[in-house]
Amino acid sequence: MNMFYIVVVVTGRARAGDRTGSPDGRNLHMRSCDMPAPTTAVIGAGISGLTAGKMLGDYGVPYTCFESSDRIGGNWAFGNPNGHSSAYRSLHIDTSKHQLSFKDFPMPESFPDFPHHTQIKQYLDGYAAAFDLESRIEFRNGVVHARRNADGRWELDTEDGRTRYFDFLVVANGHHWDPRIPDFPGEFTGMSLHSHQYVDPRTPIDFSDKRILVVGIGNSAADIAVELSSKALGNEVTLSTRSSAWIVPKYIAGRPADKYYRTSPHLPLSWQRKLAQLGQPVIAGRPERYGLPTPNHKFFEAHPTQSVELPLRLGSGDVVAKPNIRLLDGATVHFEDGTSSDFDVVVYATGYNITFPFFDEDFVSAPGNHIPLYKRIFKPGIDNLAFVGFAQATPTLFPFVECQARLVAAHVIGRYRLPSVDEMERVIEADQRKYTGHMLDRPRHTQQVDYFLYEHDLRVHELPAGRKRVLAHR
Amino acid sequence: MNMFYIVVVVTGRARAGDRTGSPDGRNLHMRSCDMPAPTTAVIGAGISGLTAGKMLGDYGVPYTCFESSDRIGGNWAFGNPNGHSSAYRSLHIDTSKHQLSFKDFPMPESFPDFPHHTQIKQYLDGYAAAFDLESRIEFRNGVVHARRNADGRWELDTEDGRTRYFDFLVVANGHHWDPRIPDFPGEFTGMSLHSHQYVDPRTPIDFSDKRILVVGIGNSAADIAVELSSKALGNEVTLSTRSSAWIVPKYIAGRPADKYYRTSPHLPLSWQRKLAQLGQPVIAGRPERYGLPTPNHKFFEAHPTQSVELPLRLGSGDVVAKPNIRLLDGATVHFEDGTSSDFDVVVYATGYNITFPFFDEDFVSAPGNHIPLYKRIFKPGIDNLAFVGFAQATPTLFPFVECQARLVAAHVIGRYRLPSVDEMERVIEADQRKYTGHMLDRPRHTQQVDYFLYEHDLRVHELPAGRKRVLAHR
Repeated sequence: MNMFYIVVVVTGRARAGDRTGSPDGRNLHMRSCDMPAPTTAVIGAGISGLTAGKMLGDYGVPYTCFESSDRIGGNWAFGNPNGHSSAYRSLHIDTSKHQLSFKDFPMPESFPDFPHHTQIKQYLDGYAAAFDLESRIEFRNGVVHARRNADGRWELDTEDGRTRYFDFLVVANGHHWDPRIPDFPGEFTGMSLHSHQYVDPRTPIDFSDKRILVVGIGNSAADIAVELSSKALGNEVTLSTRSSAWIVPKYIAGRPADKYYRTSPHLPLSWQRKLAQLGQPVIAGRPERYGLPTPNHKFFEAHPTQSVELPLRLGSGDVVAKPNIRLLDGATVHFEDGTSSDFDVVVYATGYNITFPFFDEDFVSAPGNHIPLYKRIFKPGIDNLAFVGFAQATPTLFPFVECQARLVAAHVIGRYRLPSVDEMERVIEADQRKYTGHMLDRPRHTQQVDYFLYEHDLRVHELPAGRKRVLAHR
Repeated sequence: MNMFYIVVVVTGRARAGDRTGSPDGRNLHMRSCDMPAPTTAVIGAGISGLTAGKMLGDYGVPYTCFESSDRIGGNWAFGNPNGHSSAYRSLHIDTSKHQLSFKDFPMPESFPDFPHHTQIKQYLDGYAAAFDLESRIEFRNGVVHARRNADGRWELDTEDGRTRYFDFLVVANGHHWDPRIPDFPGEFTGMSLHSHQYVDPRTPIDFSDKRILVVGIGNSAADIAVELSSKALGNEVTLSTRSSAWIVPKYIAGRPADKYYRTSPHLPLSWQRKLAQLGQPVIAGRPERYGLPTPNHKFFEAHPTQSVELPLRLGSGDVVAKPNIRLLDGATVHFEDGTSSDFDVVVYATGYNITFPFFDEDFVSAPGNHIPLYKRIFKPGIDNLAFVGFAQATPTLFPFVECQARLVAAHVIGRYRLPSVDEMERVIEADQRKYTGHMLDRPRHTQQVDYFLYEHDLRVHELPAGRKRVLAHR
């Protein structure tokens, strides 16, 4: 299904434009002038959808973005009326602004190192305004169903009751909105909620004078356990974790910790991981010192938890650590170390499912959050479909989405061509080993990617290789 | 006024006991058996009073402790009815339990690294029970007035309306209960309070949706600014500081930071301070990175502020840093950098005065918190008066008070003798230079002492020297 590649016309000038990878008017020379650009639909106007839209616009692609909410920002639109924001009131981003900025739209100087969610939203609003993105978005008009017809075109049913047709589909509906709740044996009769529903110590319930169990040890679990264990609230807070975690600070020596993070594509990755492990005693300390269970993985084998406050709360006895849950029994929770306690509330900070409610499940789904995609973007065999933003990129998401969106836009206008299905499947396996082979097989780690290596791979290898494939197919 | 030294009888066995410095039955051999031990009064049943009482009891001295409250613990008795506790609900001690423990009464294994104030109180209750201290305390019977009569004896007026006489007086009324409020020009018309009055975000006022200015950058200022800047409260928090501060974490590499603190009496102190300064880039980072003013002192020249959370809150924009206040004007506060803002509440976390309300001011007082005492205990010229616990001992207070109390008890029973007034005054000046000469001249630094050097000096030099002076005066 490469109907729009066939007509690509290559000029010398376009080749020059190619080398820099920068979008400009010359890109249009890539297509014959009488051939309309492939019409493209983008699902979602969060970070991924906005960035994809911005790049498609840069490359001259006519596109429509469908958004179920009345506003942009997705997860970062606190209290998003579409219910898809998991942001709690106190949430600050874990990535420093230095690493987080879009490469083509720097964060304001006035922002703090770790902006608040309201500032991220403000930044995204500025991004949308600067590149006139909202004019392409149909708000309150999410995609209800998406199917690929026999002719390869996309047929989308939207909330307004219409059916629309597109040449290309970009899926950017995010992966932090469908709560994942583990299935423990037994039943808990107190109140249960997922961190997705947590807003602040008074919302959605009054978290004071309560016995609270937080399940999980990701960044949300840490933030919520810290917030609810403030002595001022009179709670007793317990944290239960299956895998335990290495806890790293947000600042090292007065600089945002992620300013030190830089993987090199020119050194063996295994060496770099060994080197990172040497830093553990100084950076993280042993989790057992804070009463946490012994991690079932080495430092950097799983995504570390970023918190300066959790170790302090554990070391102050304000948060008590427990291993995994063995059994739920009425108000009582039994843990795997044989202890048990009664609780009023259980907060599951246990992550999210990757869900595509608009696809038939047998067409595309992500059981256990596994979805094999070439470069985390393309599903082998379906060339006019791209996924953007489905990764846990370390240390930064926004520029990661930006470089994914650049590849997608190059693909849409025919400056990049995918390899064969066989080759894609071989590379998917190799990449999975490279990025997550050293990690625990957990739903939250299926999407792990090192931003620096990924960006280098796309820019230096994949874009030029795709360009060569285009030329070879003229 | 050495009436009770004159009759000291030294025996060989007592000398042996001396060398170990451990109190035991043999101490009584130091006095002639027909001479009653000097009756002693202790003012206050906080940490210092309790420890002094415990040591006096160990050395067989009959003593009475006067306490205005109905309970022991002083500052650590949260909500102490005598109004002398400055503890807020969320307060955890800044010293780890490993450094904090009394040497002769270890903290329970079950305690976290940084115990909560309720646990410190529980520990002090256990200490009092173990050494039967409460039977010697007159509760709800503080000392209203203390005067030294012409014969050198102490005449104490107590709250119950009685007048009592003692040979020796130990002052242990603490130095963290009389709020110090700086005198800025102008007047602030919003609400002002001192950190002493602060309890939690709802007490004594509802701290939500307020514009709050915290003045100061000590540990209380940091804790309160962090607590009130929780996004869940909807406050805007500004922190104003005159001197700025180096901020050090409570944990380094997973171990309580103070576990690394150990000054050696065998190396020049200036070298050790230089060495500590080398650690600054890694331990503390530059305060300017968090938006704080440039400190007007080098690392370790003033007491560093212990907080892992304040840098994060500053770096997240939840707390905004400002320099010193220039002028108060209605709801507006003008700062020295020329900026100004309006506030609803000002919290002065600006430390405490050293106050002796039971002494006539011209007899003993501490203007600007300066009170020249020999070994921070004895006022030259008044041999039957001792101050206990009037120091900011780094890194730990409890064992510091313990070694002060040991010297006082040795003095009371005549195993230790003070040098001449001239010698004491010379040593006071030299010690002040040694401990605080490198520091800023600030009320909060007048009391700075390095515990390890102090304890070594008392044990290895001062006790044996005082013993020799006893022998020389036989």
